[in-house]
Amino acid sequence: MAVGLKEPEKILPVSGVRVAACSAGIYPESRPDIALLAFEHGANCAALFTRNAFSAAPVQIARNHLQIASAKYCLVNAGCANAGTGKQGYDDAIRVCNRLAEMARCPVESVLPFSTGVIGEYLPVEKICDVIPALYSGLGEDNWPDCARAIMTTDTIPKAVSRKIPIADRSITITGIAKGAGMIRPDMATMLAFIATDAAIDRELLGSVLTQAVEESFNRICVDGDTSTNDACVLVATGKSDASLLKAADTEEFDLVKDAVTDVFLHLAQSIVRDGEGASKFITVEVQAGASSDECLKVAYAVAGSPLVKTAFYAADPNWGRILAAIGRSGLVDLAIANISIYLNDVCIVDQGMRAQDYSEDAGKAAMSKDEIFLRISLGRGTVQETVWTCDLSHEYVSINAEYRT
Amino acid sequence: MAVGLKEPEKILPVSGVRVAACSAGIYPESRPDIALLAFEHGANCAALFTRNAFSAAPVQIARNHLQIASAKYCLVNAGCANAGTGKQGYDDAIRVCNRLAEMARCPVESVLPFSTGVIGEYLPVEKICDVIPALYSGLGEDNWPDCARAIMTTDTIPKAVSRKIPIADRSITITGIAKGAGMIRPDMATMLAFIATDAAIDRELLGSVLTQAVEESFNRICVDGDTSTNDACVLVATGKSDASLLKAADTEEFDLVKDAVTDVFLHLAQSIVRDGEGASKFITVEVQAGASSDECLKVAYAVAGSPLVKTAFYAADPNWGRILAAIGRSGLVDLAIANISIYLNDVCIVDQGMRAQDYSEDAGKAAMSKDEIFLRISLGRGTVQETVWTCDLSHEYVSINAEYRT
Repeated sequence: MAVGLKEPEKILPVSGVRVAACSAGIYPESRPDIALLAFEHGANCAALFTRNAFSAAPVQIARNHLQIASAKYCLVNAGCANAGTGKQGYDDAIRVCNRLAEMARCPVESVLPFSTGVIGEYLPVEKICDVIPALYSGLGEDNWPDCARAIMTTDTIPKAVSRKIPIADRSITITGIAKGAGMIRPDMATMLAFIATDAAIDRELLGSVLTQAVEESFNRICVDGDTSTNDACVLVATGKSDASLLKAADTEEFDLVKDAVTDVFLHLAQSIVRDGEGASKFITVEVQAGASSDECLKVAYAVAGSPLVKTAFYAADPNWGRILAAIGRSGLVDLAIANISIYLNDVCIVDQGMRAQDYSEDAGKAAMSKDEIFLRISLGRGTVQETVWTCDLSHEYVSINAEYRT
Repeated sequence: MAVGLKEPEKILPVSGVRVAACSAGIYPESRPDIALLAFEHGANCAALFTRNAFSAAPVQIARNHLQIASAKYCLVNAGCANAGTGKQGYDDAIRVCNRLAEMARCPVESVLPFSTGVIGEYLPVEKICDVIPALYSGLGEDNWPDCARAIMTTDTIPKAVSRKIPIADRSITITGIAKGAGMIRPDMATMLAFIATDAAIDRELLGSVLTQAVEESFNRICVDGDTSTNDACVLVATGKSDASLLKAADTEEFDLVKDAVTDVFLHLAQSIVRDGEGASKFITVEVQAGASSDECLKVAYAVAGSPLVKTAFYAADPNWGRILAAIGRSGLVDLAIANISIYLNDVCIVDQGMRAQDYSEDAGKAAMSKDEIFLRISLGRGTVQETVWTCDLSHEYVSINAEYRT
């Protein structure tokens, strides 16, 4: 049911990054469920993780390893989140990292583990260790699409995108993959996303690029308001392009690279919403004329997360009263209803806090019937603007989450 | 689909209160949709209203009137919330109040208006004014069940309850009605609830009884996390019983009355959850061993409001990972997963932050398959405890809210 999302096309290799995917048999049916990403010596790596207090074992380990060594490998499995598994879960994740480290002859701290899938099941360590040799020997520059497929859980379509941009008379490439469809209200990072570029970016600067890009993409989406225990987002810069090393943030080159990286992040983040569990509509919620970014986001998330608003979108019902009610409970102080206006695409549905005079139900219905809806809310109390992306709440969402795992 | 909820039985009249209901034709089909409650001279009345910034016209007027005069009438309609209707909505509500005030020969400020139904539609003033004479002449002590029915919207069953308790050698009666099934995450009050007693309670004291009772009942329930623009809760004490006037909070009589009033509130609040839109399960979420009431409530609402937890309940799937993930994102500082334990009825599913050793999926499934589920979460970091009531998220919820109004 993914909204406006096609199979990824023209995924470009990134010099300095080799990837592979295969099936470790974690799922009962045959499908790729494990992926490996390998970075050449000299690559810089930055990562952000979930802020859920119950972070999964692999998240804890990846955090630790990043503080000790340069990341050389990301080992990712789907089908088991290895969360809520206590000490055994931690030991299990270390064991698969060790297996890879032995084979690759690198310190175990150079391996970052990632898991996604059901919470509370133990990691199938043997199954994963058994396929590590094949995975390792299968590493190549062109296997990104297989990796995008291997990390899927309730996703209906793989998510991958590439950008190539000119920098001076050279060029750099950025390629990223992501997974995620439910338990989506990321806090500092999203489900799983791996983005690599052959640009040369100073390690410290890379962290700030990652933080900014995440803030404008994965931290602006919401499917169901739940935050995963396993969210992680990794950005790697191999420095293998001809373009020169980016060291300072106040250069034109830096802005070009940062914008292109953010563009890849945004594409992947929006892909997650488009493939949101049961989604039949992709909704952009833009809150403008707010007094602060914080209050714009409060309103945007109150609306984007309201089950009543989301079912109205599902039914193509321009029930603006529900939108108004959600804005009203978003916690803003001294909010004046008379200053609020709301637009569905180009149709003004609410003006001065009540139904717009020339609004017709037919026009609202027509706007709501589209697959892609732009909902604009003007608070009329400032100049700040924020955007959040979300999807509707459908029967399919209930089915997927009532049937998942059972 | 209401869970464990039957048609109200043995609703007792309250001396000093007369009520009536009839059809004003606000709904296309024939059903009672308007109710009137009249209080004898000397009755004290206290009310709490929604904190949604966009309160409906009747809420604004009722608030104003309560500050000016003693309330003598509550005029309630279903089918139209008269919210998001601007100045016209305000004038419309005043007009119906005026019509009743003329007939009853009382100041308009003695009339409190209440509306519930679709947001954004104008009040059908003529229809309501036309039936006010019949409503007024139909006032009687025994019409509570009709009133409970007249204020329903998406409710599937009327909600009413009575209690009679002995006070010294006398007795007092408490009778209440309520409506509500969706847009339920009350903040200071619930949808609509009217509770009357013939006890004699000092006006100031009445306010504190109301506040405390609401805090332990309507402010502890959650269906879908949305807060209505029209929530209101009214408590009336007519003083017509033989029991003496309650003036101080530190007496045994006061405690007896307060407990009985709270019991009525709790019954009505839980009835709203039992009749929650699409509900197939009634879930008590008890968070214990917390450091503060605030943090217990944060955890309880994160769990009670999680679409993933709610669909798991719907599917009778003991997916404790989702519960753990919801606790983890509830915003508690320094939460130690190793101290968490979770029980489904008597089954320990999580111990020390991971699957309990002697937990079996069958036992979890059996607990989840019941209509009434007691979910107990121990945070292991204090002595405070809070309870919230919620229901599951079903296909029926999506159907009801996708179809309502269309």
